[in-house]
Amino acid sequence: MGGRTEQSGALVVVGSVAIDTIETQGGRAAEVLGGAAAYFAVAASFFTPVRMVGVVGDDFPQRDLEWFRSRGIDLAGVEVRPGRTMRWTGRYHEDMNVRDTLSFEANVFDGYLPTLPAAYCDAPFVFLGNISPALQGRVLDQIRSPRLVGADTMNFYIEGARAELEALLCRVPLLIINDEEARLLSGERNMIRAARKILALGPTSLMIKRGEYGVLFFSGDTVFSAPAYPLEEVFDPTGAGDTFAGGVMGWLAATGDVSPAAIRKAIVYGSVVASFTVEAFSLERLRTLTRDDIERRYREFVSLTSFDVASPV
Amino acid sequence: MGGRTEQSGALVVVGSVAIDTIETQGGRAAEVLGGAAAYFAVAASFFTPVRMVGVVGDDFPQRDLEWFRSRGIDLAGVEVRPGRTMRWTGRYHEDMNVRDTLSFEANVFDGYLPTLPAAYCDAPFVFLGNISPALQGRVLDQIRSPRLVGADTMNFYIEGARAELEALLCRVPLLIINDEEARLLSGERNMIRAARKILALGPTSLMIKRGEYGVLFFSGDTVFSAPAYPLEEVFDPTGAGDTFAGGVMGWLAATGDVSPAAIRKAIVYGSVVASFTVEAFSLERLRTLTRDDIERRYREFVSLTSFDVASPV
Repeated sequence: MGGRTEQSGALVVVGSVAIDTIETQGGRAAEVLGGAAAYFAVAASFFTPVRMVGVVGDDFPQRDLEWFRSRGIDLAGVEVRPGRTMRWTGRYHEDMNVRDTLSFEANVFDGYLPTLPAAYCDAPFVFLGNISPALQGRVLDQIRSPRLVGADTMNFYIEGARAELEALLCRVPLLIINDEEARLLSGERNMIRAARKILALGPTSLMIKRGEYGVLFFSGDTVFSAPAYPLEEVFDPTGAGDTFAGGVMGWLAATGDVSPAAIRKAIVYGSVVASFTVEAFSLERLRTLTRDDIERRYREFVSLTSFDVASPV
Repeated sequence: MGGRTEQSGALVVVGSVAIDTIETQGGRAAEVLGGAAAYFAVAASFFTPVRMVGVVGDDFPQRDLEWFRSRGIDLAGVEVRPGRTMRWTGRYHEDMNVRDTLSFEANVFDGYLPTLPAAYCDAPFVFLGNISPALQGRVLDQIRSPRLVGADTMNFYIEGARAELEALLCRVPLLIINDEEARLLSGERNMIRAARKILALGPTSLMIKRGEYGVLFFSGDTVFSAPAYPLEEVFDPTGAGDTFAGGVMGWLAATGDVSPAAIRKAIVYGSVVASFTVEAFSLERLRTLTRDDIERRYREFVSLTSFDVASPV
């Protein structure tokens, strides 16, 4: 599907592309664009070219594929298979940190084996979305010598494919998961102890997403804490974590800088994009978002967190 | 009890002084020093002279009174009444954000009417700990023209003395409460909406304490978010919020600067002192804490939160 000339800052992402039905206290959106790789790719595309790896059914809207392409997302790695696209239906509680999955159909994702176009294999930046560790490993096998590999996972694999996940984690320098996953993976309630245990499994860096409480980043002995942008209303939290990861990896790929200082900025850019994502259902807010909007909110993050400036004590 | 010469940076605090029995998953401490005013005063005493207002029974340990005095805490406003000191027994769950009160005895606090020594009445900084709004108002009536009045409250008064509390809030520029209290006071789950409603009740500034998630500060249209210090182990969370408030007010009183920039630094100093408090039972950690320890951890907060420094994009 399509093609794109190779770019040195390019970022490969593999993960789910889905059609979601979402219910919140505020409303319902039926059959809308979803899936971790979709959220990730669109978020990253604000910063860098993206090469997507995944599978959709023949019912997947052509207009969404076109939108992806228009955003610089290479779809050469996206298979279109006969059948229905993956579908997920979820309902959020009044406390939006809690949601129930009402239904899930893997559909064309069932039995899918990601195969990368040759042009993807020299990508310097790779993100392995939350598919099975075996498939994540398979994708990684096809990348020649990446500069930075990030990955996500989920409770289903932490509990059900522990050995495969641990094998993968040895090959993943940057793990981006949420606090519940960090607790399950480490067996520790305290995030500092959890982080230490997870870093002992292989990753050199760990980002723990805490929803409305922001992100903790661990690398070596250093910790960085970024708040979430204070929003009066979270309309739909779906994809917040995936767009966070997309913003982080996209910004790192764009700058080519993976120093500790750069990673901190990347975390804030990721937080910025995530804060926009939750302002509307699905990826709707990202359709109109501009790079100027992002820069403006980045500066608000500076103001939100600064305390040791000017006016000496 | 004792006396102390007037100081312009002095800070008056009124609140409970108690004898606590605390159970955590890690252990039990019986009949130890506690009470919001005790935690507050000791925390503030790292920065500024403190004038305490409260009541203890004749069973209150003389050594604790002497410790207070040795820290520059004026006890002229502390009555010693015949009978037992207030007592509280609490048990923390494995999730230390949750605790049960196993027993509470007001004892000598029952019927107590705070009366300030004449020397307290010109204090520029005042903190009204979480006693009844009527008693908080009574203390405030006795202060001539304070530069800054801070207050705390609790669910018991939000639900049981709403009218008195609202009357008090008109007179309190700085309210320092936790997230649960903010939700109850505002009827809003979202902290931004909660803050807006609470600021409409009178305070010009609001600090919302979120335990391990840090503090949100609202003033006008600005928001400041400070993380909690990442601790591997929280030994006893009792008094964390009170020492936070003590650090904030103590630092503001010490510098005499109540500008928005100063308040942000004060919040971090409060967070620093609170992070030490929870490292041991009761006020034990504060007995050995030094100002150097505080400055060191303050600098760690800078490193914990900085992202928009040097290395331009």
